[in-house]
Amino acid sequence: MILHGYWRSSAAYRVRIALNLKGLHADPVAVALRHDAQHDPVFRALNPQGLVPVLQIGQATLTQSLAILDYLDDVYPRPPLLPKADIDRARVRALALLIACDIHPLNNLRVLQYLTGPLALTEEQKCAWIHHWIAEGFTALETMLSTSPQTGRFCHGRTPTLADVCLVPQVFNARRYACDLEPYPTIRRIYETCMILPAFADAAPEAQGDAEG
Amino acid sequence: MILHGYWRSSAAYRVRIALNLKGLHADPVAVALRHDAQHDPVFRALNPQGLVPVLQIGQATLTQSLAILDYLDDVYPRPPLLPKADIDRARVRALALLIACDIHPLNNLRVLQYLTGPLALTEEQKCAWIHHWIAEGFTALETMLSTSPQTGRFCHGRTPTLADVCLVPQVFNARRYACDLEPYPTIRRIYETCMILPAFADAAPEAQGDAEG
Repeated sequence: MILHGYWRSSAAYRVRIALNLKGLHADPVAVALRHDAQHDPVFRALNPQGLVPVLQIGQATLTQSLAILDYLDDVYPRPPLLPKADIDRARVRALALLIACDIHPLNNLRVLQYLTGPLALTEEQKCAWIHHWIAEGFTALETMLSTSPQTGRFCHGRTPTLADVCLVPQVFNARRYACDLEPYPTIRRIYETCMILPAFADAAPEAQGDAEG
Repeated sequence: MILHGYWRSSAAYRVRIALNLKGLHADPVAVALRHDAQHDPVFRALNPQGLVPVLQIGQATLTQSLAILDYLDDVYPRPPLLPKADIDRARVRALALLIACDIHPLNNLRVLQYLTGPLALTEEQKCAWIHHWIAEGFTALETMLSTSPQTGRFCHGRTPTLADVCLVPQVFNARRYACDLEPYPTIRRIYETCMILPAFADAAPEAQGDAEG
């Protein structure tokens, strides 16, 4: 397996965590987003979206981090990233999608570049945008986590799931932009619990070979 | 089952299609987004995100359209929304997520309201934003669909999948904003193929009870 990623990409970070949880190895290939390597024709041939991560397995090329996570969970079911009961799986998927659809894509590099490029927003307006969408998402997520009896040590019960795999990179991203995480004690607690595990710690951006100072 | 939705919401539209494909009925409850009904405390208690759709099944409350689609596919497996082979499922999920993560959330009502509210963008800038993200996504999607031997009458093979369930509402949305769909012949062909089926046609926004003229 080859994982085309970028140290600071939340979506690539998710895949690194899942690979680690399942004890799998993928050779990392760094796609330098800061230098527009994702727009290189060779990379675009691999993924017409020009986004990371891309996971190559034999002749197959997988895109979209959540599709990759589901694939890994289908093919390497131990330990599972989703609970057994249908209704529990729906809860875990909803928590993961809240982050993956309603927070992360709004604060992605290409969107921030559109804000400061064509829309000519100031750095301050860009930061307010980032903070706004993280606060919107985290406020709802905190309520959902703190009021559900199904929340345990992790987002769902006593083992990491797809929801935690999405939560941790989003908290990393929020910290990077100096978001105030004080209003989200459950999110912070679960993040800290995850980061004790080597699968999460070893996947952290600063632990990657292409990390910049 | 009760489906809290809104006639013009792409995410609610997806769930309506899936229910129809599986021959299921949910009582519709209209959440008037145009009148901020999603911010009502009663609705927020149901979904802290204040977004549609919400599917109530007995005591359970499901949020996030893709989590709902997976749940419906798990509990009512016929006809399936996902192919059998792991690698094919990953392809279908990636096509669906390209739309659900990288196009739709950027052009959602709450985002457009932020553009014209706090950011004080003009109507023209708002439309350019909408067109930009649809073009970005559809250009990649058209390449992925037109170059894959797995694309058939539908996005994947000869029966509708999760990818078509996401594609059709996104094309509706693109038309609503007068996007030029000329560069996307495969997307247009699949859309037309879907709309012949009653499951898709009956789910269309204009066919809903809360549709406005």
